[in-house]
Amino acid sequence: MAAYKSDIEIAQENEALPILRIAESLGLNEDQLEQYGKYKAKLDIHALVDKPAKGKLVLVTAITPTPAGEGKTTTSVGLSDALSRIGKKTVLALREPSLGPVFGIKGGAAGGGYAQVVPMEDINLHFTGDFHAIGAANNLLAALLDNHIQQGNALGIDSKTITWKRVVDMNDRQLRHIIDGLGGRMQGVPREDGFDITVASEVMAVFCLASDLMDLKERLGRMVVAQTFDGKPVTAHDLKAEGAMAALLKDAIKPNLVQTLEHTPALVHGGPFANIAHGCNSVLATATALKLGDYVVTEAGFGADLGAEKFCDITSRYAGFKPDACVVVATVRALKMHGGLPKNDLQHEDLEALKRGMPNLLQHVRNMQDIYGLPVVVAINAFPTDTKEELDLVEASCRELGVNVALSEVWAKGSEGGVALAEEVVRLCEEGNAQFRYGYELEGGIKDKLNAIATKVYHADGVELTAAANKQLKRLEEQGFGNLPICMAKTQYSFSDNAKLLGAPTGFTITVRNLKVSAGAGFIVALTGDIMTMPGLPKAPAAQNIDVTADGKITGLF
Amino acid sequence: MAAYKSDIEIAQENEALPILRIAESLGLNEDQLEQYGKYKAKLDIHALVDKPAKGKLVLVTAITPTPAGEGKTTTSVGLSDALSRIGKKTVLALREPSLGPVFGIKGGAAGGGYAQVVPMEDINLHFTGDFHAIGAANNLLAALLDNHIQQGNALGIDSKTITWKRVVDMNDRQLRHIIDGLGGRMQGVPREDGFDITVASEVMAVFCLASDLMDLKERLGRMVVAQTFDGKPVTAHDLKAEGAMAALLKDAIKPNLVQTLEHTPALVHGGPFANIAHGCNSVLATATALKLGDYVVTEAGFGADLGAEKFCDITSRYAGFKPDACVVVATVRALKMHGGLPKNDLQHEDLEALKRGMPNLLQHVRNMQDIYGLPVVVAINAFPTDTKEELDLVEASCRELGVNVALSEVWAKGSEGGVALAEEVVRLCEEGNAQFRYGYELEGGIKDKLNAIATKVYHADGVELTAAANKQLKRLEEQGFGNLPICMAKTQYSFSDNAKLLGAPTGFTITVRNLKVSAGAGFIVALTGDIMTMPGLPKAPAAQNIDVTADGKITGLF
Repeated sequence: MAAYKSDIEIAQENEALPILRIAESLGLNEDQLEQYGKYKAKLDIHALVDKPAKGKLVLVTAITPTPAGEGKTTTSVGLSDALSRIGKKTVLALREPSLGPVFGIKGGAAGGGYAQVVPMEDINLHFTGDFHAIGAANNLLAALLDNHIQQGNALGIDSKTITWKRVVDMNDRQLRHIIDGLGGRMQGVPREDGFDITVASEVMAVFCLASDLMDLKERLGRMVVAQTFDGKPVTAHDLKAEGAMAALLKDAIKPNLVQTLEHTPALVHGGPFANIAHGCNSVLATATALKLGDYVVTEAGFGADLGAEKFCDITSRYAGFKPDACVVVATVRALKMHGGLPKNDLQHEDLEALKRGMPNLLQHVRNMQDIYGLPVVVAINAFPTDTKEELDLVEASCRELGVNVALSEVWAKGSEGGVALAEEVVRLCEEGNAQFRYGYELEGGIKDKLNAIATKVYHADGVELTAAANKQLKRLEEQGFGNLPICMAKTQYSFSDNAKLLGAPTGFTITVRNLKVSAGAGFIVALTGDIMTMPGLPKAPAAQNIDVTADGKITGLF
Repeated sequence: MAAYKSDIEIAQENEALPILRIAESLGLNEDQLEQYGKYKAKLDIHALVDKPAKGKLVLVTAITPTPAGEGKTTTSVGLSDALSRIGKKTVLALREPSLGPVFGIKGGAAGGGYAQVVPMEDINLHFTGDFHAIGAANNLLAALLDNHIQQGNALGIDSKTITWKRVVDMNDRQLRHIIDGLGGRMQGVPREDGFDITVASEVMAVFCLASDLMDLKERLGRMVVAQTFDGKPVTAHDLKAEGAMAALLKDAIKPNLVQTLEHTPALVHGGPFANIAHGCNSVLATATALKLGDYVVTEAGFGADLGAEKFCDITSRYAGFKPDACVVVATVRALKMHGGLPKNDLQHEDLEALKRGMPNLLQHVRNMQDIYGLPVVVAINAFPTDTKEELDLVEASCRELGVNVALSEVWAKGSEGGVALAEEVVRLCEEGNAQFRYGYELEGGIKDKLNAIATKVYHADGVELTAAANKQLKRLEEQGFGNLPICMAKTQYSFSDNAKLLGAPTGFTITVRNLKVSAGAGFIVALTGDIMTMPGLPKAPAAQNIDVTADGKITGLF
């Protein structure tokens, strides 16, 4: 293989346009944005309030992730550039990266190869400060809560029931389980506690679902942080916290405008977890993109069972989005892993393994078609080791579902490598056959909704609740939370709740171990196992390779 | 008293100029700055590297602080505006506020009344993100340190010797003393730990003393975080942390340009504690201001015994600054408190109390004259309750030292209220009588330098070291740190180390309880008592009054 350029080398060689030029291409003038340096800006959402949405909405999702990687963000970026290339006014809407993976094992998250958003270093490091603002708002609430107890506890908060954790945008396992408030009477109240990574904060979920600053403030006020000694929920509003929290977020809430390597406008904004939260960029970014572009490409985290399900059932329900088409990203390598091949054997053709893995892709495709009523195209993110026979096999299987396959070579070729995919997306949108619908209705009990997701989306036999979860279910319904949508916190590595069951497993049930309301975000989180909300650093952290030159150029960031 | 407008009301009624206009007034073009919205920008320091310093440097300091307040920042802002008003090209250099006091008891820190820097809400809330960047760099080092131990501890770090704490920009007493790393083998190594507020981080001190990005990186690498089992210091460089830390700070290191209410350019950048650190804005901001303005006004934290001493002995030594004049700010009210009056009795004339309090002011003035060789003017920050007789008394006493007193009414009147002060400052600078020198030389042992500060600046009989401090002294000198300047961590409320000794006490000794090297910052911190590095929130936190309107306007921030 030739010596490939690294992502950061490609990004740094690129000549970006001044962000004002990108804004002008969207019909925005200088007064409608706030520049953050020459290549980043925040959009004035007030200026756009009355502008109607006009764009077609394209949802990019994927097969069940494997260690072989599927390249969803790269495909989203490349598709946007390809749509621009064939003459469509396109806006990309993506999540912001967290510093955790940047310094940990995964590296940056702004696409790859010749399909990236830039400036990639800035987007990966602080960007416009949104995540720090979210962390500060989260931690202010925590400080006000503990201070309330320390200063006399007028609300009668039972410190053993506190569920509100502090956050930091860092992979830091040392903070997972702590005891704080030690040191004597004047130093707080000793209790078990712990930190999450910022993207796991409910503030992040609220931030990404809020329709404007006042909706944000109201949602923040509704967040439940603990219980009183007599079992009543304590909210951020009870602690008079939501005003200052919203003040901390007044700039962060404005969507960030950047560009792809080929100058397609991109709104990169917000980034909640796709397990304990809903895993999409902010509603405001997507809604703004729909006002500015004829085509809007957005992405949902993890596989379609988690990300796309939540995009349809949570995000679109709250925001009133109606996707027009769906792209399911897969790689031949990952499908062979779903067919049982180990990671080290993927470079050779193996049609049998591929055939065994195909049901994973086909089940995701059928779900998007049958449950959510969306026309689908499969994007195969090309690798040099893919053979023609393997690609033909994928194509033939998909055709049986009436779905076309487009080979995507955007990583290596940029927009040129995404034209086939873009043309198929345009065809699907122009045919207008989408009949978007939700996977379940809000009426009915929590159990009904859990069952609907488990049987329809995961193809499980049903859902079981532990005794603890059953008790929580009863309480949540009594408290009036029964009509909220469900946010499933499930492993991303399987349709089931067992990370080892690859492909399209059957004959399993989903066990819900814990139910918790995120009252500000407006959903009930159903935990089906241990979900890591504070990652750790690996033995050789990526941070140790990152450096900066005298003139501020970043190196070693991947 | 008439109904005064609040600081935020005055600031929000003000019509700021676009920051590009402010930059133009300094001879800077659009390519030499990065805008952060319309009213904030970061300056490209590379563009200015070869420009010579040309400005006169005016250091604003104050008497020993009392609860009556002295108004040092307000005076600095008003003096800058008054210098502009009388035709001098002036640049102000100030510290950035921390979120801690904003949400706690003190409120904002961008001046007051008609002498403020704007946009005051933004400056008080996140600003351009510098403090969050500093916090992230600090916490990345902490995560790398604990991860190193967890992953096998190749360096042989003794976790009981870790001195590196995590930080958050928040008043949060619950985090002062914690045990982290709990939860089992895979969750870190259990140990006693704690958080500081961000401004107390050595990263902040390093950030404010660094001459450029490479100097910053080298200083970060030198920081000591723990000891090995065989007693050797472990540095950030040993953990390969400084590259990524500097990468996180690549934008933060650029000074922030804003403006006063009257459009004087202000560089607001950095903000280390004035006890465990040196308490001045960044060297880069002051150095840049000296290249751009004919007059540069900067401020040092707390009273002159702490802030001005460190500005002269640490900051100026590292940066090569030579102050031309010194303003010592006082209020009649505060001087009466130094004369023994309680806070509630300050509104009535009391010449006896004032006379008893004067020695505090006079001793600070003499110190700046005799030790540091600077011409001094006393600025009396006017209050409506001050009487003519009181002001005459202050003036007469100061005249005995050859020092003029200027009444400063900038809080109520803006620049117009500061003309007398500005004219005296100009007179002192133009006379050119400054003979700036340091308070001690670096050669000689740590004890000599401690004694010099204690006897010359504090007028103590001498310094005593506890047995522990003596042991630390020996070790630090053995490790080669004996020639560093000293950073005294002493109460700001007295010349002595006893906060209750007001005025100008004599017959006391200073007890040094702990000596610790800040090897990156380049000083030895001498602790003379308990210094709070993580404040708590009061019973009624200011955060509970802060709010934001639908169009993003902040209210309730003082």
